[in-house]
Amino acid sequence: MGKNLSKRNQDYSKWYNELVVKADLAENSAVRGCMVIKPYGFAIWEKIQAELDRMLKETGHENAYFPLFVPKSLFEAEEKNAEGFAKECAIVTHYRLKNDKKNKGKLIVDPSSRLEEELIVRPTSEAIIWNTYKKWIQSYRDLPIKINQWANVVRWEMRTRFFLRTSEFLWQEGHTAHESKEEAIEEVKSINNLYANFLENFMAVPVIQGLKSESERFSGAVDTYCVETMMQDGKALQAGTSHFLGQNFAKAFDVKFTTKQGSLDYVWATSWGVSTRLIGVLIMTHGDDNGLVLPPNLAPIQVVIVPVYKSSNELNSINKVANKILDNLRNEGISVKYDDREHFKPGYKFNEYELKGIPVRLTIGPKDLEKNVVEISRRDNLSKKILENDNELVLNIQKILADMQTSLFRKAKEFRDNSITEVDDYNTFKTIINIKGGFVSAHWDGSSESEEKIKNETKATIRCIPLGNSFKKGNCIISGKPSLQRVLFAKSY
Amino acid sequence: MGKNLSKRNQDYSKWYNELVVKADLAENSAVRGCMVIKPYGFAIWEKIQAELDRMLKETGHENAYFPLFVPKSLFEAEEKNAEGFAKECAIVTHYRLKNDKKNKGKLIVDPSSRLEEELIVRPTSEAIIWNTYKKWIQSYRDLPIKINQWANVVRWEMRTRFFLRTSEFLWQEGHTAHESKEEAIEEVKSINNLYANFLENFMAVPVIQGLKSESERFSGAVDTYCVETMMQDGKALQAGTSHFLGQNFAKAFDVKFTTKQGSLDYVWATSWGVSTRLIGVLIMTHGDDNGLVLPPNLAPIQVVIVPVYKSSNELNSINKVANKILDNLRNEGISVKYDDREHFKPGYKFNEYELKGIPVRLTIGPKDLEKNVVEISRRDNLSKKILENDNELVLNIQKILADMQTSLFRKAKEFRDNSITEVDDYNTFKTIINIKGGFVSAHWDGSSESEEKIKNETKATIRCIPLGNSFKKGNCIISGKPSLQRVLFAKSY
Repeated sequence: MGKNLSKRNQDYSKWYNELVVKADLAENSAVRGCMVIKPYGFAIWEKIQAELDRMLKETGHENAYFPLFVPKSLFEAEEKNAEGFAKECAIVTHYRLKNDKKNKGKLIVDPSSRLEEELIVRPTSEAIIWNTYKKWIQSYRDLPIKINQWANVVRWEMRTRFFLRTSEFLWQEGHTAHESKEEAIEEVKSINNLYANFLENFMAVPVIQGLKSESERFSGAVDTYCVETMMQDGKALQAGTSHFLGQNFAKAFDVKFTTKQGSLDYVWATSWGVSTRLIGVLIMTHGDDNGLVLPPNLAPIQVVIVPVYKSSNELNSINKVANKILDNLRNEGISVKYDDREHFKPGYKFNEYELKGIPVRLTIGPKDLEKNVVEISRRDNLSKKILENDNELVLNIQKILADMQTSLFRKAKEFRDNSITEVDDYNTFKTIINIKGGFVSAHWDGSSESEEKIKNETKATIRCIPLGNSFKKGNCIISGKPSLQRVLFAKSY
Repeated sequence: MGKNLSKRNQDYSKWYNELVVKADLAENSAVRGCMVIKPYGFAIWEKIQAELDRMLKETGHENAYFPLFVPKSLFEAEEKNAEGFAKECAIVTHYRLKNDKKNKGKLIVDPSSRLEEELIVRPTSEAIIWNTYKKWIQSYRDLPIKINQWANVVRWEMRTRFFLRTSEFLWQEGHTAHESKEEAIEEVKSINNLYANFLENFMAVPVIQGLKSESERFSGAVDTYCVETMMQDGKALQAGTSHFLGQNFAKAFDVKFTTKQGSLDYVWATSWGVSTRLIGVLIMTHGDDNGLVLPPNLAPIQVVIVPVYKSSNELNSINKVANKILDNLRNEGISVKYDDREHFKPGYKFNEYELKGIPVRLTIGPKDLEKNVVEISRRDNLSKKILENDNELVLNIQKILADMQTSLFRKAKEFRDNSITEVDDYNTFKTIINIKGGFVSAHWDGSSESEEKIKNETKATIRCIPLGNSFKKGNCIISGKPSLQRVLFAKSY
């Protein structure tokens, strides 16, 4: 289906980059490592935002907004967090430009505008937020605080890739404060469940929920929970994380509260986020050689109607029928577009909507009018079907959309399940990682040394220690030492 | 009503700052000139965003996202624009921190991470966007482009004030590209109307639509349209602007297109925006000595129910009635909160909701239960009334909310209309500006010299040349030269 898209099995990475550009999702910008998110890509982000925002508010979270800049002295307060981000942050040092006397029309940084203290463009907002929470929290009555922020953040990445890794990205970051360890852990777990629920039921992306090993944890966290996904090329992708921060930030920023018992204690913290990376997950989970495939729940356009005609008389007759269907679908809350552009042939339009992953396409031609039918085409399996244009049409389309949502999930889950291989020796491990890819479920002794050795030799890392693991003992594939449970290894994005 | 809020007529500026903090809208942050927008303030911004976003989409605009950073070489391409913002921009010069060897646990900027080209944190996005549009536009078929972006921007302000002037602020910025001058002007005017409509009908804030004089124009614009508002202290506030950019940016970034006739022409541009400043407009238009007053349309909580009780038995009986009312109101789409917190007395709650400007408060006590009534209190005029708790209750509350919306507008419009004084000589002009304040409608010869002289001597500037002016000739109040129409002067924020 000549969309000039590379095939996934020939060059997955090339396929991905081409798809992003050709489906009009994003493009590179003049700023190193930063992309422009185009209207169609942004509309998908808006669908993600709207649903997640609803879910977060329903669970008692409120939105707020904290400054883009973090003064260096605050940034370095939580040492592990600072260490983790120090090597990749954009630093504002001056606040004024002036005319370049040697070069008319050009500007140079005015050296006299040097800041007394440098400002870090936030790579994450724990520091600025905990410095603020200090003012908000005196007593247990001020707790919990459950705040979320939709924001841009900057991490100076050396190797970038559309959506998956860009120097600037958009995300939501939750920052909560609690009076007890238990309550904070409860919050982290419930957010991990919320992310899993969102990914599986809204994005149709199956996840494995788990805990990160120490070396993969968020800098400054005591524990990092994650939702891990498997892409079609056998590489894992971390879709979201939630961190139990213990009292690390409360100690760094001296945030204490009076407990119910009247004593003074440090506040317990969590933070968690998902980002525009989710659009990468979406593309690589459902996309095929014809382009993007969108689960109906987050398709900005769920149904497109394309008229097929020769004369303007024919078009006029089709318009009447199409507009009726359009209204009926809209009344049921289905987002639909009628593409009656005259400059473009139907075949061109079909290609375009396949590339863009529109779930359902209706085609109406003069013969369909005679028979009072429409041709319906599903993006996920490219199947076509003739439907009566009767009172049941909208209901039938709703059924197809619902079926597509579940069947996309089923297909992705089948793929993901098949991608997990249990392995008990290191040779097989290496073979599987290099040839089949996917998750390898293997015993690990819990040491950073073993983890590091495996990483250096195979590029596979521990993606997570799955929650709800069955605790069957075994021996570490690399050290032979006893292990309590299997963990999941994979190469990853 | 002891809220410890300064009185407006004693110290307006102090009243404003205290209100912002005490109503939990925002607070200062650790970053010079940047504020933290607290959940309640941000909820108001979300209401503003939701409605404006809907209006912009309905008029064919799409959202997208462009990078936070502008490389210096792009920033300086449109010289007037660059000149206008050069003195107030945050500049990123480095991308890495390293350990300070002299000071354990501290970080310093790594000198080896100096960027080859400095990045400007966007003060506005014309440069980065027009550099992108260059790739998108070849032919008239690619036009118009009507894109909006919700984003944070940074302008390094020396004197800041909550919402009105902060170094970082949130806004929407529209950037459109057109094939003809007429179409671009049409867009600018229609956005100016959209802003006026939004402010008047949604925010209950009366505006004067007009054109800016040359000295008050956006840097790089051919014409700037504005919506001007009048605050209670007699100072004007510019609530939103839309700019006709002519071909200035197309020329600076070399963006040409093939016209329908086959020739090559530069693209015509507009840009326009409103920001978190609108929250300042809202506070200063409707607020009173008891705190914030929110028009029901943008109140995050429209109705609050407060139980008044002595025993837990009484509370239980009230709960039943209150929850029924709560459900009935929610079913009609009214956002309502039931405040049954036990730690706080009713009087404390009344104060809090007055400070926060909740439009309607329902009070229910044991005697109300007996009589099957509720006490309703309106925030705008602080009037109280007894309403039957019958089938009409929700309808009656809806009527009160609707009445409050229109009467807030009426009151603000009356104030604004009374604030306009026609003046024909410079002495009276000075007296009015200094004593009464408000808008002074006076003749002006159209020269920058006269404008500058008036500004230096009185601090009043031309807020706008009103659209729909009657063209009655006169003589400039300062030069005596002939003038075609009156313009509006005022001191302003």
